Amino acid sequence: MKRGFASDNNAGVHPEIMKALDNANDGHCIGYGDDPFTLEAREIFRDIFGSQSEVFFVFLGTGANVLGLKAITQSYHSIICAETAHIHVDECGAPEKFTGCKLLPVETSNGKITIAALEKHMHGFGFEHHSQPRVISITQSTEMGTVYTVKEIADICEFAHKNNLLVHVDGARIANAAAALNMGFTEMIKDAGVDVLSFGGTKNGMMYGEAIVFLNKDLAENFKYLRKQGMQLASKMRFISTQFLAYFNNNLWLKNATHANGMAKLLAEKVMEIPQVKITQEVQANGVFAIVPKNIIPQLQEQYFFYEWNEFTGEVRWMTSWDTTVEDIEGFIKILKNLLK
Amino acid sequence: MKRGFASDNNAGVHPEIMKALDNANDGHCIGYGDDPFTLEAREIFRDIFGSQSEVFFVFLGTGANVLGLKAITQSYHSIICAETAHIHVDECGAPEKFTGCKLLPVETSNGKITIAALEKHMHGFGFEHHSQPRVISITQSTEMGTVYTVKEIADICEFAHKNNLLVHVDGARIANAAAALNMGFTEMIKDAGVDVLSFGGTKNGMMYGEAIVFLNKDLAENFKYLRKQGMQLASKMRFISTQFLAYFNNNLWLKNATHANGMAKLLAEKVMEIPQVKITQEVQANGVFAIVPKNIIPQLQEQYFFYEWNEFTGEVRWMTSWDTTVEDIEGFIKILKNLLK
Amino acid sequence: MKRGFASDNNAGVHPEIMKALDNANDGHCIGYGDDPFTLEAREIFRDIFGSQSEVFFVFLGTGANVLGLKAITQSYHSIICAETAHIHVDECGAPEKFTGCKLLPVETSNGKITIAALEKHMHGFGFEHHSQPRVISITQSTEMGTVYTVKEIADICEFAHKNNLLVHVDGARIANAAAALNMGFTEMIKDAGVDVLSFGGTKNGMMYGEAIVFLNKDLAENFKYLRKQGMQLASKMRFISTQFLAYFNNNLWLKNATHANGMAKLLAEKVMEIPQVKITQEVQANGVFAIVPKNIIPQLQEQYFFYEWNEFTGEVRWMTSWDTTVEDIEGFIKILKNLLK
Amino acid sequence: MKRGFASDNNAGVHPEIMKALDNANDGHCIGYGDDPFTLEAREIFRDIFGSQSEVFFVFLGTGANVLGLKAITQSYHSIICAETAHIHVDECGAPEKFTGCKLLPVETSNGKITIAALEKHMHGFGFEHHSQPRVISITQSTEMGTVYTVKEIADICEFAHKNNLLVHVDGARIANAAAALNMGFTEMIKDAGVDVLSFGGTKNGMMYGEAIVFLNKDLAENFKYLRKQGMQLASKMRFISTQFLAYFNNNLWLKNATHANGMAKLLAEKVMEIPQVKITQEVQANGVFAIVPKNIIPQLQEQYFFYEWNEFTGEVRWMTSWDTTVEDIEGFIKILKNLLK
Repeated sequence: MKRGFASDNNAGVHPEIMKALDNANDGHCIGYGDDPFTLEAREIFRDIFGSQSEVFFVFLGTGANVLGLKAITQSYHSIICAETAHIHVDECGAPEKFTGCKLLPVETSNGKITIAALEKHMHGFGFEHHSQPRVISITQSTEMGTVYTVKEIADICEFAHKNNLLVHVDGARIANAAAALNMGFTEMIKDAGVDVLSFGGTKNGMMYGEAIVFLNKDLAENFKYLRKQGMQLASKMRFISTQFLAYFNNNLWLKNATHANGMAKLLAEKVMEIPQVKITQEVQANGVFAIVPKNIIPQLQEQYFFYEWNEFTGEVRWMTSWDTTVEDIEGFIKILKNLLK
Repeated sequence: MKRGFASDNNAGVHPEIMKALDNANDGHCIGYGDDPFTLEAREIFRDIFGSQSEVFFVFLGTGANVLGLKAITQSYHSIICAETAHIHVDECGAPEKFTGCKLLPVETSNGKITIAALEKHMHGFGFEHHSQPRVISITQSTEMGTVYTVKEIADICEFAHKNNLLVHVDGARIANAAAALNMGFTEMIKDAGVDVLSFGGTKNGMMYGEAIVFLNKDLAENFKYLRKQGMQLASKMRFISTQFLAYFNNNLWLKNATHANGMAKLLAEKVMEIPQVKITQEVQANGVFAIVPKNIIPQLQEQYFFYEWNEFTGEVRWMTSWDTTVEDIEGFIKILKNLLK
Repeated sequence: MKRGFASDNNAGVHPEIMKALDNANDGHCIGYGDDPFTLEAREIFRDIFGSQSEVFFVFLGTGANVLGLKAITQSYHSIICAETAHIHVDECGAPEKFTGCKLLPVETSNGKITIAALEKHMHGFGFEHHSQPRVISITQSTEMGTVYTVKEIADICEFAHKNNLLVHVDGARIANAAAALNMGFTEMIKDAGVDVLSFGGTKNGMMYGEAIVFLNKDLAENFKYLRKQGMQLASKMRFISTQFLAYFNNNLWLKNATHANGMAKLLAEKVMEIPQVKITQEVQANGVFAIVPKNIIPQLQEQYFFYEWNEFTGEVRWMTSWDTTVEDIEGFIKILKNLLK
Repeated sequence: MKRGFASDNNAGVHPEIMKALDNANDGHCIGYGDDPFTLEAREIFRDIFGSQSEVFFVFLGTGANVLGLKAITQSYHSIICAETAHIHVDECGAPEKFTGCKLLPVETSNGKITIAALEKHMHGFGFEHHSQPRVISITQSTEMGTVYTVKEIADICEFAHKNNLLVHVDGARIANAAAALNMGFTEMIKDAGVDVLSFGGTKNGMMYGEAIVFLNKDLAENFKYLRKQGMQLASKMRFISTQFLAYFNNNLWLKNATHANGMAKLLAEKVMEIPQVKITQEVQANGVFAIVPKNIIPQLQEQYFFYEWNEFTGEVRWMTSWDTTVEDIEGFIKILKNLLK
């Protein structure tokens, strides 16, 4: 099928993951998570995120985000996020529907939230007319292809906790951020003070399945009921867990993410040589954002599919993935140049 | 009890309304709205808003807003409103909780929404990842004491309908707007093209009770179930309806609103003579917003209570009501001047 | 207007309540409950229900039930109630909508729940597929005009607490139960071990307004947000509170309820003399349930309106109220006898 | 790993399904359903359920049930189901949470609903205090291992439509029912008049993924938004769709289901020879329900795991699956007999 830069989820499943699925398909297993694959996968997460952490597997990233937020909120709370956050613009209102909470989008130029932007929502505490601020949700790496430094995350966590808020990280592309920062999850997430993490894998070579990590398991006391009620409890859970086993084995996650990030860098370098195209965001993970002359977009999409990101500015998004090749990049650049002639 | 400018709902109930309550308290009446008072009150609303309209009475403004919005949305819709809107900042997330919808606040300098601000949300139609824009909600008069012209409302309605959206008006202070514009509800609401109106009375002399007006009764087909499920169906409904009868009788609503608006104008005029105080919003209805030296606020509040509007800017809000007196204004100004000496 | 036995909420407002409304209508009052009437009314409730209790006023009984239940549940809980419970059959699904919980109706012959009927739901604890039983909700007096003894309530509370459940009482007609048992609320509710009470007044002479009593205020820690989000926070709350002041003054509640109960007894006695009519429930409070020859129902309703209770059995319900007169009873019996000739 | 009869979802994935996953893992595919596998799978469903039908893929059975119900209800509706229904007892309140509707369980002795049991809920139409009956949900094959005849389904559909209700079928084991009845889905579902079907595959050899079939696509007009908001839209959807392709290829579904049903029959026959064990339900699909002496249950579970179905009666459930072997049955029977000696 035609290759492209539409999304990292347009790539297939890494062969090691496929092998793991086969591997788990042996005889009977108790359903819903009481199987050896799940026990082992949970152990790995506990090794990374600490003995006080607890992990739960779900089907998809939206499920991970929404249920993670539900676990730490009451309906009269508000959740502060960037105006570009997936939970705000790409989940069709699932967070509001399932949590009842208000989402408060804050302005951002690069997908990242600043403390200054948060400040203006730090009011109305204890005032019953006002949705009570309770969670700051950030995305790492962001929807704009940028990456928070661990210092930035730690600062947000400190700010949050000082104000009696919690921090949620949408880590649909957490591996790309870790690869970009050359840093482990322990340091970037646990040590920085994050409270809940959506740990994604599907965008980095898995077939399906994501994890919700509570850094402090007290927050997860009754979470199993929310997962079931939230329609995210897999009966044949071993097939999610086995993917995570392969994902962590030999640092497959890191190899995949490093590759995808490298391909984005390469793409960006080549694009920067083309004067008619303007890159709009710093390329830190596996996404390249650019403004391209509008008239060539349809023809370019025909060859290598991608999405227009912003109908108003004409900004487009090119995502690379674990299986992007140098040939993909070169082929794309060639067509791009041709169209611009 | 101590008088002040905290809110128009700190005023009591107009004597004509009290009389109407007594008047309705005669023997037995079928509950839940099948009584003669309700039938007559509904008739009056139909006279104003047209034969295609339908009205329902509820207990309070938040109930009117939330249920009116629920009636015209599905959970995957979004509702666009000013960042100052009562539904966004003063209902503790009730709209999100009950409708499941996303609220999209747009920037405003004076409580009014501009078409330009709406434009940026006119995208993502048909895209399943995106909460579908469905309602524009405006407040008339606004939470900032300003008033939309009928032209502005009509323009918003035209814009909305062109984009297949509906328009909701939070009319908690609709009477003050009508008085300010010197215009009837028919012209300001029905003729302008509004779809659903929360018609308030409590802030203008009633004890409790608001109305939800559907300009096209097709939108209200199953609304009676939502009102019950939304905990807004009064058993002794005659006591809400009779208040509306008195409210419309001899234009009591207009007298009250005209008086309150006049008192705000008077207050503003006198404040403008004081150089240390800066009025921040045009005074068009019954609210005056101003920046006052921070240090005098506590002492001023002791004499005439009012609220700080913005913790960051030091802006305060003074609301006048149907029972504000010239003496209230003069007494307040006197103290204000003394404190500023 | 035509008198009847349709519901105790078809009666008007007691003159003492009306007087109290007038009384409270004096000048300005801070809204939303920070007024002296509300403070005094809360004091009275605290005197009755103990220093550990906390009370909140809302608009109506459905609001009291739903918000009281919301305060003590998470969405994955279940609420067990009689199949005749108002929360199950007469609130259009408001409890499910607002709490997300499952309602589990248990069979009843007289509106009362037995421990035996509860037993069958005491399973599945800790099993994530199963809505976790959390609340037993009973109605006192019941929807069938019967009354739990204090021993029965205490037994249900003991059973509940032993199983880590809480007990909610829908007390829309709690005054009638107290009058029937000749017992105060302290003994019947607090001492019996109830956790949350919906304390009604509208059916016993008030205009509007009900109270939610948390016997242990720890359960109410964040309730103020739920009340606002649940659209039950009255701006001019003094007018609810003042009604409660009058309601407790000189035991008005008890006089009204005793009278209504007495009228039901009288009605039942006279009906029992008529062989064609069969009383189906013990008459302990202010309701009489009976089976009447179907053919005479429409004509009887024309003179004194009432509701068919059960379309299948032909059972009808006659409610008496604080303003039912001996003449009402006699007139009704006369017509009933005539129609049966 | 240890084999058993705990659930048909404890079995693994059929080799043909595994092969299909590999098969689909080739290069890039547009996500979220715009891929050739999904298009082809949708074609197959349309062939079976008619040109007026529309199908959507989701992750799991609870998701299929809940979203299918959400699509055809408003929050003030009620859904009638058997007291044994998965949606009532095994989804932790997900239907109530996501739809807001009331579930009305009706008594059943064998998992099937009778028209007589439905009749008692056919009242209160148009009465705003009453959740409006809107859906009858049946399970085929039932949670008790029984199977509705097509006549029974058609009768329920006729009854439903006559009363302006819709019929939902929870078909988590629809293949077992089809195999039992020796009948295609077209006849059993479409021709019988069903409105919405949850079409399961996971319990019959798939890894994950279920389908929601709307027999009349008008009911699904805006369903895509509900699927996304309901956290059931798979990004790499090709991997669900490809499973369905394999599932229908060469009637794999039928072979698997026929095998599982046959194993249940065999198990039942052998159990019936043991006088101390009493089979409690007619064995029509792939489940056997029996009462076993309580004392031997723990030891029996150690060898072949299964669940106690009813803590009170001691009834147990044995499920067979596509991979149950004659040896499994014989080994189990042998131990059972030994334990009973």
